[in-house]
Amino acid sequence: MKLIDGNTIATEIITELTEQVANLPGRKPCVTFVRVGEDPASVSYVRKKQRTAEAIGIESRLQLFDDSVSREELKSFIQSLNDDDSVDGILIQAPLPKHLIETEVFNWVRPDKDVDGFNTVNIGKLCQDDPEGFVACTPAGIVELLARTGVETNGRHVVVLGRSLIVGKPAALLMLRKGPLADATVTVCHSRTRDLPAITRQADILIAAIGRAHFVTADMVKEGATVIDVGINRITDDSRKSGYRLVGDVDFEAIANKTSAITPVPGGVGPMTVAMLMKNTVKARMAHGV
Amino acid sequence: MKLIDGNTIATEIITELTEQVANLPGRKPCVTFVRVGEDPASVSYVRKKQRTAEAIGIESRLQLFDDSVSREELKSFIQSLNDDDSVDGILIQAPLPKHLIETEVFNWVRPDKDVDGFNTVNIGKLCQDDPEGFVACTPAGIVELLARTGVETNGRHVVVLGRSLIVGKPAALLMLRKGPLADATVTVCHSRTRDLPAITRQADILIAAIGRAHFVTADMVKEGATVIDVGINRITDDSRKSGYRLVGDVDFEAIANKTSAITPVPGGVGPMTVAMLMKNTVKARMAHGV
Repeated sequence: MKLIDGNTIATEIITELTEQVANLPGRKPCVTFVRVGEDPASVSYVRKKQRTAEAIGIESRLQLFDDSVSREELKSFIQSLNDDDSVDGILIQAPLPKHLIETEVFNWVRPDKDVDGFNTVNIGKLCQDDPEGFVACTPAGIVELLARTGVETNGRHVVVLGRSLIVGKPAALLMLRKGPLADATVTVCHSRTRDLPAITRQADILIAAIGRAHFVTADMVKEGATVIDVGINRITDDSRKSGYRLVGDVDFEAIANKTSAITPVPGGVGPMTVAMLMKNTVKARMAHGV
Repeated sequence: MKLIDGNTIATEIITELTEQVANLPGRKPCVTFVRVGEDPASVSYVRKKQRTAEAIGIESRLQLFDDSVSREELKSFIQSLNDDDSVDGILIQAPLPKHLIETEVFNWVRPDKDVDGFNTVNIGKLCQDDPEGFVACTPAGIVELLARTGVETNGRHVVVLGRSLIVGKPAALLMLRKGPLADATVTVCHSRTRDLPAITRQADILIAAIGRAHFVTADMVKEGATVIDVGINRITDDSRKSGYRLVGDVDFEAIANKTSAITPVPGGVGPMTVAMLMKNTVKARMAHGV
């Protein structure tokens, strides 16, 4: 069994990007983070993204809004970023307060600055296999993990557990594309799927993104499969100071020895998301020119 | 075995639309067909669509361009249709001559007039389960055939054979949606799939859209499955005056008795495509208002 080390692979990508950015002529890539409110997880994610940007040599800017920001004020700020030639990428940190509709806000971001890949146009481009579009960071990170671990996808059966717009559907579309790192047979399962273990047991590559702790048990995995665990769930753990620990959607302990390769949680898919955001930002800068 | 009669179901839909259009206050829905060149199949398809529109009470206009039309001329004409408030729907008949890039041309059509569902924004909306978008007519027709035949999809295994942007991928996305007529477990297979019969035999509903005559044989279908045959292929037939006949991707004769329901070719999915185009045009008119 091979442990797919997301931290190491993310660091590789960050090193490559650092070199690429150092060699860029003209201005550095620039990403603006927009955070609304003080959700502690959002504060921590944005800080992590800013630190990574800085390490690479990407300029990052941060705009904070109060929880009560109006739709109009937020929209007009995003439009000013769209019009600002010094900004390559715009990231609106989710979740947003309830009076704002996330899909609407994400669509205010101009597609060529949408480094999160959540704009309707970029989702359509993913369907159309258009390489100019931006792919959401978590599914893009899964492809990168498989590629850098040398996992073959051509003609193999990928089973995706979960049909979310953020992970399940784009991961399925990526695996279905033509060409290298794709060309897989793809099955998407979810809460309505009948006899789920009979389907997941067919997976050469199982991508679990269902958001339930330890949902995937040993009887659901084929001997020798590759398992990518996208879940990040809190479970009570009295042995920890915090009183909890983070676990994936997969019962890692029970399954790891059956697999040919598996991602841990934490330290698997998680670190890739930030790395892919940086990769998208550099891609946006390349497309925008000097 | 039940024969799923696309002609009858398409006629039902056309009757419903005729009544709906008769009761519409204000102007009638209007669709403009754009045909480039004199490809005989295109001439015949557009004529069929015009006749159906007329029967329903939808105004249809036809704009012809020579094969040599420039990119700029075509683009500026489409923009004039976008700006014309009397036009609800715009259909660019494919195929286009080689100097025009189809995906580019389809994206000139404003999303809210894109009754063919080929604009990147409408493909993205399909992924996002946005009911305001337009879904491509053939996959939308498949859903309608299943619905009106009373085929349950919730939790059942739909296997789609083919990953085209026109049929395979949108059909898979439709079946994956939440809610009635959807909620299926979906597998997409294609030319790279290994041990294809083992996968297609799992299908409760098999959608064949691979474009190869009689590709699906009896050993590939489970007893009691529902089979939707999207293929339209010409094969030599010396008993016909024309010297050929049309057959589907499925070996109908060999399979029909194994299925619980199956579409014939011709007379299955084919007639639904035109009916769904009309349904999209009426939907566009409703969205545009009087």
